[in-house]
Amino acid sequence: MNTSLARFLPILSWGRTYDRSSFSNDLMAAVIVTIMLIPQSLAYALLAGLPPEAGLYASILPIMLYAVFGTSRALAVGPVAVVSLMTAATLGEVTAQGSAGYAAAALTLAALSGAILLAMGLFRLGFVANFLSHPVIAGFITASGLLIAASQLKHILGIDAQGHTLLDLLETLIRHLPQTNWITLIIGASAIVFLFWVRKGLAPLLARLGFPDGVKSALVKAGPVAVVVMTTLAVWGFDLNQSGVQIVGAVPQSLPPFTLPPVPLDLLQQLVLPAFLISLIGFVESISVAQTLAAKKRQRIDPDQELIGLGAANIGAALTGGFPVTGGFSRSVVNFDAGAETPAAGAFTAIGLAIAALLLTPLIYFLPKATLAATIIVAVLSLVDFSILSRSWHYSKSDFAAVAITILLTLGMGVEAGVTAGVLLSILLHLYKSSKPHIAEVGRVPGTEHYRNILRHKVITDPAVVTLRVDESLYFANARFLEDQIHNRVARDPAIRHVILQCSAINAIDLSALESLEMINTRLKEMNVCLHLSEVKGPVMDRLEEQHFLQEMTGKVFLTQFEAAEFTASAASA
Amino acid sequence: MNTSLARFLPILSWGRTYDRSSFSNDLMAAVIVTIMLIPQSLAYALLAGLPPEAGLYASILPIMLYAVFGTSRALAVGPVAVVSLMTAATLGEVTAQGSAGYAAAALTLAALSGAILLAMGLFRLGFVANFLSHPVIAGFITASGLLIAASQLKHILGIDAQGHTLLDLLETLIRHLPQTNWITLIIGASAIVFLFWVRKGLAPLLARLGFPDGVKSALVKAGPVAVVVMTTLAVWGFDLNQSGVQIVGAVPQSLPPFTLPPVPLDLLQQLVLPAFLISLIGFVESISVAQTLAAKKRQRIDPDQELIGLGAANIGAALTGGFPVTGGFSRSVVNFDAGAETPAAGAFTAIGLAIAALLLTPLIYFLPKATLAATIIVAVLSLVDFSILSRSWHYSKSDFAAVAITILLTLGMGVEAGVTAGVLLSILLHLYKSSKPHIAEVGRVPGTEHYRNILRHKVITDPAVVTLRVDESLYFANARFLEDQIHNRVARDPAIRHVILQCSAINAIDLSALESLEMINTRLKEMNVCLHLSEVKGPVMDRLEEQHFLQEMTGKVFLTQFEAAEFTASAASA
Repeated sequence: MNTSLARFLPILSWGRTYDRSSFSNDLMAAVIVTIMLIPQSLAYALLAGLPPEAGLYASILPIMLYAVFGTSRALAVGPVAVVSLMTAATLGEVTAQGSAGYAAAALTLAALSGAILLAMGLFRLGFVANFLSHPVIAGFITASGLLIAASQLKHILGIDAQGHTLLDLLETLIRHLPQTNWITLIIGASAIVFLFWVRKGLAPLLARLGFPDGVKSALVKAGPVAVVVMTTLAVWGFDLNQSGVQIVGAVPQSLPPFTLPPVPLDLLQQLVLPAFLISLIGFVESISVAQTLAAKKRQRIDPDQELIGLGAANIGAALTGGFPVTGGFSRSVVNFDAGAETPAAGAFTAIGLAIAALLLTPLIYFLPKATLAATIIVAVLSLVDFSILSRSWHYSKSDFAAVAITILLTLGMGVEAGVTAGVLLSILLHLYKSSKPHIAEVGRVPGTEHYRNILRHKVITDPAVVTLRVDESLYFANARFLEDQIHNRVARDPAIRHVILQCSAINAIDLSALESLEMINTRLKEMNVCLHLSEVKGPVMDRLEEQHFLQEMTGKVFLTQFEAAEFTASAASA
Repeated sequence: MNTSLARFLPILSWGRTYDRSSFSNDLMAAVIVTIMLIPQSLAYALLAGLPPEAGLYASILPIMLYAVFGTSRALAVGPVAVVSLMTAATLGEVTAQGSAGYAAAALTLAALSGAILLAMGLFRLGFVANFLSHPVIAGFITASGLLIAASQLKHILGIDAQGHTLLDLLETLIRHLPQTNWITLIIGASAIVFLFWVRKGLAPLLARLGFPDGVKSALVKAGPVAVVVMTTLAVWGFDLNQSGVQIVGAVPQSLPPFTLPPVPLDLLQQLVLPAFLISLIGFVESISVAQTLAAKKRQRIDPDQELIGLGAANIGAALTGGFPVTGGFSRSVVNFDAGAETPAAGAFTAIGLAIAALLLTPLIYFLPKATLAATIIVAVLSLVDFSILSRSWHYSKSDFAAVAITILLTLGMGVEAGVTAGVLLSILLHLYKSSKPHIAEVGRVPGTEHYRNILRHKVITDPAVVTLRVDESLYFANARFLEDQIHNRVARDPAIRHVILQCSAINAIDLSALESLEMINTRLKEMNVCLHLSEVKGPVMDRLEEQHFLQEMTGKVFLTQFEAAEFTASAASA
């Protein structure tokens, strides 16, 4: 077998050792995940503003393609809450929800997102996602959860509301509040209360009743299915749709259709930035789930190959009437816990969903939209967690600033503005911090060869020698800062004859910083002061040795700070 | 005297000790600088597309205001080549050169630039300028020099040409080449040859003739004045302006007028980004001259106060018919060499130029524009230096990329595009590098307590222990990279029981990185592997100690890597 082919087709590795035991484990996991996914897929299609069948379609081919190209054994790919919200926000800018162009634009968005992910995978650009810092993601998910819950309230109340910011949503909700449909509200509110009870109250109850853990967790997982069945029966039995309860209605009984996403240039231009953000957010969510699950079985995840797997899945969604997808947290955990051993479990899930799309869709005709909204609200409220605000406040104010701006802008200006502002602010704050590095003036700890900050420790110093330790790599943004600091330190103290830069924390010196060192050397020479370096790291020294600087430097390079201090002490007293 | 007042008014410090000797030195320097500045000011006004008197006006009040607010003793403020070019490029986008709105927009640009500099100084934002890396500045100045020289060729040829990119300029020049005015060309070419000879040939000649250094350098500096006098006389004597030689013409005989810059909102919006770039470039040029000169006398420069000084100077230019100014290299060096001791020299220069504006302007009626163009060309060609390309190529490819893109875009798309692209590219490359830090797996050098890279050195390792040294501070952009590296290193080697992170090069850990460490700890725990830290720096440890992480960590924190290795070796064999 060609190993480079195996890199791009992980299925070739696990497929060779596939046996009957893996098959039966995968099949069992697939049955459980399929049952869980039916209401979830319908609900996320509703959240994305698309017809319910789109949610099923988006879970079939994508999950099979990921099984071929992905590296995670347990990841389940399909529609997820945050990506569905971002899809709705993006498409709402381009065209009206419910219009023919809306579903077509969803295909284009999935195709673009797939192309971006594939390109990032092929060119190994997965590192770009690392610029979404943890606090920004945490803030974004919390704010998105609130936005999603707010966007679903209209289905619970049976009224109309729109908007992609919290204010817009609440304002239109309040304006339409008098039109509340009470029957819808009773269904929706009961569903929410029931689902919360299943999460919080059912498990302890079953435990007290002595049910084994497996049955207990299966019953809890079946909560959304139960509420779907009960409310559908209620609407059908009492003809509640005649009283204004919005229902899912006729869903085509078919396998996923073959669709070609439209690609007019102006649409592509409008969608490319949102598609990029959707890809990044989806990738980050997916890879963190995949790695957490892989660690439990000491398996490897290749981030660049994951991009290819997710890219293929999104292209698949675009070709089969879906919308952007990614690896979801809850479905993957269920898959893993249910015993899935290989990506074949995903393929079996896809077959299960295909059968559902073919045979079960007439059964959900009377399913109230309020029920789907209730499952979404209960799911996303578990994502809302403001503790990141207090945690970051205590750890570092710049992390706090990034979280706060992300939450505020996501709620106040929408998902794109929120995540973009969060990323830019965290990059700017990082650059700011590295542009003013910590520079400690150090002295010798009595009786040792250690050198420590003169402000923190009682140390021995020499009036003719200044030793500065820069706690940051030197690059353009802090090179001139170093020039200023050294210049001003020496200019105000005429006794100084030697400056030693202790380079133990300097991992790199770029060309700007090298030129700053040359400038520092020249200016110190004008002031009759020698410049020395100590404890320069190997790779940094390798580079410096190719340059003139070391010959021009007025002082020497010392292996240890102690040697440098010994030398300058004798030179100063001579 | 109030010391906080003295911080904002450096004149209060040097003014108190001002004596007769300083006075006579300053006065002598002022006379020399004034003579040099007259042709230079006229030429840079021409370069900026403004009437010649604007160059004189821009040198009078600005230099006096800098004397009050600036911290450099020798800096001479006024129009400089690169800023004048940027002014012309900016105003050319807004309105037609020569129109009434053009000169008014120049006032607005100077006012905006002054306001930006003042704001940066008051809010201590001088560090922003540090993001202009040395290679980007070097590339920008070289490309600007070429652009300036190309823009002046039309005056040498006596034809019309315009454009803000090298291609546009050359294309219009070639198209108009048949209209070349031969007399203008002879004047311009002779002036260029003469000025180059003064620079390269006159000094050695005078040295051979035994002239003392002072006289020699004064004669060399007087070159531009001589060529102005000679060509003016030639035009006047032979009525060459009748043959199509463009002359400066009537210049109002007056002190700088009081002008109020117009501030319509749409103009401000168009000018604010260019004004920001002009401010940054001007500040960087000015501060580097100021520090170089200050070093020679062991004087201090306060970068934030320099911003205030330059801001005041630009506001002054806006109020007196000028255009954006900054501290110039050549004029400051002349001022310093001529013996200027305090900013009073600048004030005296301003008085000299005011007298020139009042009395001497009729004398330059017949001064050919070709002469001014020649002085510009000779001055800027000394700025053109492509050696930065080969130097950066050999030192670091990312520095080279930043230089190359700056030069290409400045020449091909104009000054704003060039400097912006250079800055953004260097920031992106820096972020990229820090997002994939050097992570070395280390082992013990036999017979020592030192730990070195297993790939570079013959070291002792333990199959149950992996020690990784990360040569970079941990922050969001590299936190997940570390997760991947550790996960994949451990997942492929089932013998591993301990992972030690040697933290000697880690100067900071942000919240994302802390959460990654928590995640690494959790995942390693799933794989039955302990995580240890060694050689954590004081400030990093302070922060970690406030967090749960250290309690949750499966392993320990060790002062030295040797202790960590001893502990894990005994734990692994136990």
